[in-house]
Amino acid sequence: MRLLVLLTAFGLLWTTATGAATNALRETEVEHKFDTMIHPSELRDWMKLLASEPNHVGSPHDRVNANQILSWFKQWGWDARIERYWVLYPTPLSESFELAGTKPFKATLQEPPIPGDTSATATEPALPAYVAYQGDGDVTAPLVYVNYGMKDDYKTLQRLGVSVKGAIVIARYGGGWRGLKPKLAYQHGAVGCVIYSDPNNDGYAVDRTYPAGPMRPPRGLQRGSVSDISLYPGDPLTPGIPATRNARRLKFSAAPTILKIPTLPISYADAQVFLAALGGPVAPQSWRGSLPITYHVGPGPALGHLKVKSDWSLREIDDVIGVIRGSTWPEQWVVRGNHHDAWVFGASDPLSGQVALLAEAKAIGTLLKGGWRPKRTIIYASWDAEEPMLLGSTEWTEAHAADLRKKAVLYLNSDSNGRGFLQVAGSHDFQHLVNQVAAKVIDPETGVPIAQRLRAHIRVAAFEPDASEHIKEGAKVAADPERDFPIEPLGSGSDFSSFIDHLGVPAIDVSFGEEGDSRGVYHSRYDTFEHHSRFVDPGFVYDALLAKTAGHLVLQVADQDLPVQRASDFADAVEDYLEQVEKLADEERDRAETQSGLLQDRAFQLAADPTKSSGLPSPLGRVPHLEFAALENAVDRLHRSATAYDQALAKKGSDLPAPKLERLQSLMLTIDQTLAPEIGLPGRPWYKNLIYAPGAFTGYDAKTLPGVREAIEDHRWNDANRYARITAEAIDRYSDRLDQATAVLNAK
Amino acid sequence: MRLLVLLTAFGLLWTTATGAATNALRETEVEHKFDTMIHPSELRDWMKLLASEPNHVGSPHDRVNANQILSWFKQWGWDARIERYWVLYPTPLSESFELAGTKPFKATLQEPPIPGDTSATATEPALPAYVAYQGDGDVTAPLVYVNYGMKDDYKTLQRLGVSVKGAIVIARYGGGWRGLKPKLAYQHGAVGCVIYSDPNNDGYAVDRTYPAGPMRPPRGLQRGSVSDISLYPGDPLTPGIPATRNARRLKFSAAPTILKIPTLPISYADAQVFLAALGGPVAPQSWRGSLPITYHVGPGPALGHLKVKSDWSLREIDDVIGVIRGSTWPEQWVVRGNHHDAWVFGASDPLSGQVALLAEAKAIGTLLKGGWRPKRTIIYASWDAEEPMLLGSTEWTEAHAADLRKKAVLYLNSDSNGRGFLQVAGSHDFQHLVNQVAAKVIDPETGVPIAQRLRAHIRVAAFEPDASEHIKEGAKVAADPERDFPIEPLGSGSDFSSFIDHLGVPAIDVSFGEEGDSRGVYHSRYDTFEHHSRFVDPGFVYDALLAKTAGHLVLQVADQDLPVQRASDFADAVEDYLEQVEKLADEERDRAETQSGLLQDRAFQLAADPTKSSGLPSPLGRVPHLEFAALENAVDRLHRSATAYDQALAKKGSDLPAPKLERLQSLMLTIDQTLAPEIGLPGRPWYKNLIYAPGAFTGYDAKTLPGVREAIEDHRWNDANRYARITAEAIDRYSDRLDQATAVLNAK
Repeated sequence: MRLLVLLTAFGLLWTTATGAATNALRETEVEHKFDTMIHPSELRDWMKLLASEPNHVGSPHDRVNANQILSWFKQWGWDARIERYWVLYPTPLSESFELAGTKPFKATLQEPPIPGDTSATATEPALPAYVAYQGDGDVTAPLVYVNYGMKDDYKTLQRLGVSVKGAIVIARYGGGWRGLKPKLAYQHGAVGCVIYSDPNNDGYAVDRTYPAGPMRPPRGLQRGSVSDISLYPGDPLTPGIPATRNARRLKFSAAPTILKIPTLPISYADAQVFLAALGGPVAPQSWRGSLPITYHVGPGPALGHLKVKSDWSLREIDDVIGVIRGSTWPEQWVVRGNHHDAWVFGASDPLSGQVALLAEAKAIGTLLKGGWRPKRTIIYASWDAEEPMLLGSTEWTEAHAADLRKKAVLYLNSDSNGRGFLQVAGSHDFQHLVNQVAAKVIDPETGVPIAQRLRAHIRVAAFEPDASEHIKEGAKVAADPERDFPIEPLGSGSDFSSFIDHLGVPAIDVSFGEEGDSRGVYHSRYDTFEHHSRFVDPGFVYDALLAKTAGHLVLQVADQDLPVQRASDFADAVEDYLEQVEKLADEERDRAETQSGLLQDRAFQLAADPTKSSGLPSPLGRVPHLEFAALENAVDRLHRSATAYDQALAKKGSDLPAPKLERLQSLMLTIDQTLAPEIGLPGRPWYKNLIYAPGAFTGYDAKTLPGVREAIEDHRWNDANRYARITAEAIDRYSDRLDQATAVLNAK
Repeated sequence: MRLLVLLTAFGLLWTTATGAATNALRETEVEHKFDTMIHPSELRDWMKLLASEPNHVGSPHDRVNANQILSWFKQWGWDARIERYWVLYPTPLSESFELAGTKPFKATLQEPPIPGDTSATATEPALPAYVAYQGDGDVTAPLVYVNYGMKDDYKTLQRLGVSVKGAIVIARYGGGWRGLKPKLAYQHGAVGCVIYSDPNNDGYAVDRTYPAGPMRPPRGLQRGSVSDISLYPGDPLTPGIPATRNARRLKFSAAPTILKIPTLPISYADAQVFLAALGGPVAPQSWRGSLPITYHVGPGPALGHLKVKSDWSLREIDDVIGVIRGSTWPEQWVVRGNHHDAWVFGASDPLSGQVALLAEAKAIGTLLKGGWRPKRTIIYASWDAEEPMLLGSTEWTEAHAADLRKKAVLYLNSDSNGRGFLQVAGSHDFQHLVNQVAAKVIDPETGVPIAQRLRAHIRVAAFEPDASEHIKEGAKVAADPERDFPIEPLGSGSDFSSFIDHLGVPAIDVSFGEEGDSRGVYHSRYDTFEHHSRFVDPGFVYDALLAKTAGHLVLQVADQDLPVQRASDFADAVEDYLEQVEKLADEERDRAETQSGLLQDRAFQLAADPTKSSGLPSPLGRVPHLEFAALENAVDRLHRSATAYDQALAKKGSDLPAPKLERLQSLMLTIDQTLAPEIGLPGRPWYKNLIYAPGAFTGYDAKTLPGVREAIEDHRWNDANRYARITAEAIDRYSDRLDQATAVLNAK
C-alpha cells in the first residue's frame, strides 16, 4: 500500500523533472517495485524442484530443468528459446583405485546416501568419483604425496630429492585449480593422479561434518573438470567456434585440453589409508593436513593401481535464452547468466544462483506486463554444461561473438551463493556502479546497506593482527565513505570467462558468502536442498538478496541514459597492477642475486641435514631490468584521460542532446574491447584480455596485466618486454577512446 | 701425533712473541690439547649411567648422581664439594582427571613403558603426570578449551562470548610458558586447569612417534613447573635469600609463587576424549590442533572432575660445586653450570648438557695435572632442582650474591643439547667472544666452523618465502663475514636466570639443535638414553661439540688478559631494542585509534555473524606519546662511549702495564651490573636487569628493555615513562664506566 502512494508521487514528478533526475527517479521506482516481487519462499520451491535429481550434463533431469526454465521464461513474458550445442563430454564407464601389496585396499569412489537428505531419496544415479577430461588409463606405480601439486611443490620435491617420474601422485585439493594437479604431474613424468579433500581444508578441522554440520563428511568427494583451462575453456574439439551439430571438429587425439593421465578424486577416509602407507621424507610443515597421521612424501613403498575408462561420445547441451527487446536502444545488450547443470544435485552450485536469476526474470517479466520496458535489450541466460568447463556459455559466445562485440554493454554472472557479505569481482570501470547499487540494497541480517556491512567486514578483518597488506589497503579505502570500496579482478571458473577473457566484453560476478557457504559439500553428492537450507542460506534470504542486487545492476545498466563506466576507477586499478608487476620484477632480481650468493658460498649444502636427502635448488639465473617506460607512460596518460572524461561526464553529461548521447554511448559501449586485441596472451591466444586473465598456473585466480606478470613469474624476459609494449598500446587505445568521448562531451 | 708437532712449533714461538700474541698462542695450544681430550664414547657412557633411573628431586638416583659427579670432580683434580639447600618441593600423592556424565572416562596419567627402552627396565618409579607448585584441590566443573591459554586467547574468548568462570580449562602446550596457563585461568575465574600436548606441536603431525620416530607418542605427558616465575624463581618460601636449613621462611599460605588451582598435564590420547565432548562455538582457525576432531570451545556440556593432592614437605637438594683457583687473578671467577636433576630419566634434558660439562671438567682437570693453570678462578656447578624452577642455582646465587657481584666475569650455562646448529643467547657485550670461539670450533657434519654453518643456516632460512623480518635482518649480518653473527637475548627457563636477571652478572647459554631435538619427549618418561642416542645425537658428537664450544669459552674468559667484552655489540643491540619499543608504542597508538573508529561505526557488530554469539572487544583507550628523549640520548651516548672504548682497546690494549690492566679489568668485570639497579622491574623487584628479562606474560621468552616494553604492552603509561628514565640512567652508568675504562686505556 505504501509503495503505491510513492508511485503516484513519482508519477507527478515524472513529467516535470529534467532528464537525469527523471532517470534516477524512474530507476528508484522500478527498483522498489522489483524488490517487492522477490519472494524467498518462491526461490525455495524452485530450488527444491530443480535439485530433486542429479543434474550433470547428459542426465535426464538436466534436460528436464532446461525445459522447465524455458517454460517459466515464456510464462513470464520473455522471448525465450533453447540454443543447443553438441559437445565432447566424457561419462565414466568404469574406475578403480587400489593399494597393491600385502594389505590391499580399494577406494570407495561412491558417496553413501544420507538419510533425510535428497541424496537418499533421489531415484536417478549420481555420477561416481570423476573428473572430466582426465586421460583414461590403467597404471600401477609407487605413490608420491605432492601437497597441492602446484609448481612450487615440485621445487620443494626437488629439494627433498624426490621425483614423481613413473609414479602416481596424490595431491590434496586447494592451493590452485584442480586441473593443474594432473597436468603438472604429467609434465613431471607421473603416470596417474589422485586428488583428495583434506579435512584441514573443508572437513572436520573446519566444523562438524554433514549431516551434523556443514563440512565434508569422511566419504565426500569433490568432482570437477580438469580440462586444460589455461589454453581455452569450452568444448575441447571446437576452440574459437561454436559446437554446432556440423561444426568442423578437432580429432580427439589433437584436442590439447584433454589430459594425458588417468585421474580420480577420492575421499579423505580413503586417502588416509594410502597416505599412511607412504615412507620417504616427512612432508614439510606447510604440506601437512589434518589427518591423524605423519604425512610422508614417498615414493612408495605403497604401490597404487589406478584405472579409469570413459565413454567419449558427443552430448547435447541446452542453453536457455530469454530476451526482452529494449525500447530505446535495442542494439545495446545487457546479458545476465547463471548455469543450471551441476555435478550431482547442485543445490548451492549452481541452483542458489539460478533461483536468484529466475526470481529476477519473473520480476522483470511482471514489470513488463505492467507496461514498463527497458531502454536496452536484456538477455537472460541459463547455461548448460558449465561444470565440465564453461561449455554452454563458451559455445554461445563463440556463436554470437560478432553481435556481442558490437552490442554487449555488460555480462553479469552469478553461480553458487551463500549467506554473509557481498563479494564482487569484475571490470573496474564498473566499480562505481557496483558501489551505487550496494549503497541501496539492504542486508537482511543487520538492516544496513550491503555496502556498509561489507566496509565494516573489510575494516574488522584488517584489524586482525595477521591481516594481509592487501586487506589493510582495502580497509583504508573502506573506511572512507567518500571512496568506493574496491572490487576484485576476475579470473575464471564461471561463465563470465568467454565474455571478458576472450571477447573483452566487461563482466561482473556477484555473490554473497563467508558466513554460510557450501565449500564442505562442493561438487559432492551432499550439495542438496537440505544442506543449502540448513547451513548455507536458511530461509533463502541471501539468495533473494542476490536477486535484488543482480536485478538492480541489470536495471541500472539497461536504463541509464549515460554510460555507467567510471574511468578513474579503472585507471587506479591498472596503476596498482603496474606497481605490483614492477615490484615483482625487483623482488625476482633480488631473489636471484641472493640465491646466487648462497650457491656460491655452498650455503644450501651447509644448512642441509646430512642425514636427509636434499637437492640444490635450480639456479634462478640473472634477472634483467625490463622496459617498463611505455607502460608507465600509458598508465600516466590513462590517468589524465580518465580524470578528464569523468569530470566532463559529471559536468556535461546530464544535458546532452540525443545525437551526442548516442555518439558517446557507442564510444563507451565497446571501450573495454580495446584491451583485448587479437594477438592474445603468449602461448594461449584464446585469452585476449591484457588486463585480466586466469593465471596459467593458478587456473581460476586472476592474474592482472597477465602478459607481463606471468612472463616475469616464468622468467620469459623477451615476452615480458614485448607484452609491456603490447599492453601499453592497448591501454593507449583505451585512452584514445576516452579522449574521443571527452571531446564529444566538451564540444560546444 | 700431528698435534705434538704443532705444539713443539708453538713452543718455539712462545718465548719470542709479544704479550697479546703469546696470549693467543697459549690459548690455541690449550684449546687443541683440550679438544683431544673430549671423547664422545665417554659422554655416552656417562649418560647411560646417569640416565639409568628416574632423577627427579627427592629421588634416590638424583642423590646417587650428585655423589657420582662429586667423586668424578674430585678424581679429576677439582676442589669439589656439595652445597645443600632445604626447599619446598611438592611430591604427588594422588591425582585424577575424569569425564563425568553418561560416558565416563578416566585420564591415564601414567606413561606406559616402551620395550627396549630405559622406561621399561628402570626399577625406580617415574613421577606420574604432574606439574610442580600447582594448587591442590578437588573440583567438578564444565570444560572450556582455551587454546594456549595466553592473554590474547582470553580476548578471543571474550569475543566468542565464552567465560571460564567456574570452569576447568583445557589448554594445549605451546604459545608461551606452561605456568601462565593455570595462572591466567585462575585470574579469569577458572577452578582447574588441564594442559595437554597437541600432536600438532610435538606429536604425529611433526614426525613418527616414539619408538618408530622421535615424536611424542599418544600417551606421552609433559611434566614441568608452574611456580610463578614472573615473580621470582627458586624456593617459593625463601625469595632473595638462600634456603639454608634454618633460613627464615615464608608461611606456605603467603608464598606468592604457588598457584591456587589444581592443574595436571595429560596426553593427547586422553585429551581427544575430553575435547570431543565439548560443544559451543567452533574454535577459531588458529586454535585448531591436529587431533581428528572439530575443536569446540565449550563451555561443556562435558563436565570434568579434577583432583590433585601433594606432599608439601621440605626436600634436600644437592648442588655439586668444583673449583680451580686462578693463578693470576683468583678473585675473578668464571662460572659454568648445567643441572643434573630431571623429570624422569632426563637423557636429553639435562644430561646431554651435563655430560658435556663433565667432559670439560675432566679435560680441564687433565690440563691442570699437566701443569697448566687458569689465570682466573674456574667454578663448575652441577645444579640440582632446576626442573621445579631453577632452585639449585637460585639458592646458590642468593647464598653467594656478595662474592658473585664482586668477582663473576661470566656465567656460562647449558642444558638440553641436540644435533645441528649453534644456538647462543646471552649478554651482547660477549657476542664478539662467541663469534671468535665459533669461528674455530669445527662442525662434525660438514667440516666447516660452526659459525660458518650457522651463517649458512640463517641465510638459507631467510631465503624461504615466508621468512620473518627478524630472520631477514639476521641474514644480512650473517652474509657479511666482517660482521659478527647476532646472538639472542636471554629470558629464563634455565639456570642462568638468577645470574643475569637478579644479579646483573653477564651470562651466555649455549646449545646445538634443530636437526635432532628432544621436544617430542620433553619432560616425559621417554626422554631416555635410547631416544637420545637414536634420534637426538647419534654418536654423541654434538654433545662432545658442546663440550668443545663451552670449554673454549671458559678457557678464553679464564685466560685472556684483556677484558673480552666488546661494547659496540651491546650498543647496537640496545639501539635495536629501543627502535622496537618506539615502534611498538606507535603501533599501539595506531591500533587504539583504528579500534575507536570501528567501535564508533558499529563495525564489529556489522561484521559479526548474527547466528553466532559474539562480544565487543574491550576498548583499548587512548595511547599517549611517551617520554623517550632521555632513553634516546642515553643510547646515543652509549654508542659514542662504546666506539671510543672499543677503539682504544684495539689500539692500546696489547701493551698495557700491569696496574693499568688490573684497573681496566676491575672496571669491566662488573660493568653489566650497572644495568641491574636495586629497584628492579615494576611489580617484580627480584628481576633487576633493565635490559633483559623473561616476559611476565611469556614466561621463558625474553623481553628486552622490559621496564618500558612491558609497560607499553600492558598500557601502564606512567610505568612506561618512569622506566624509560630509569633505564636511561642505567645505560648512562654503563657509559660512565666505559668512559672510565677508555680513560685508563688512553692515559699516557
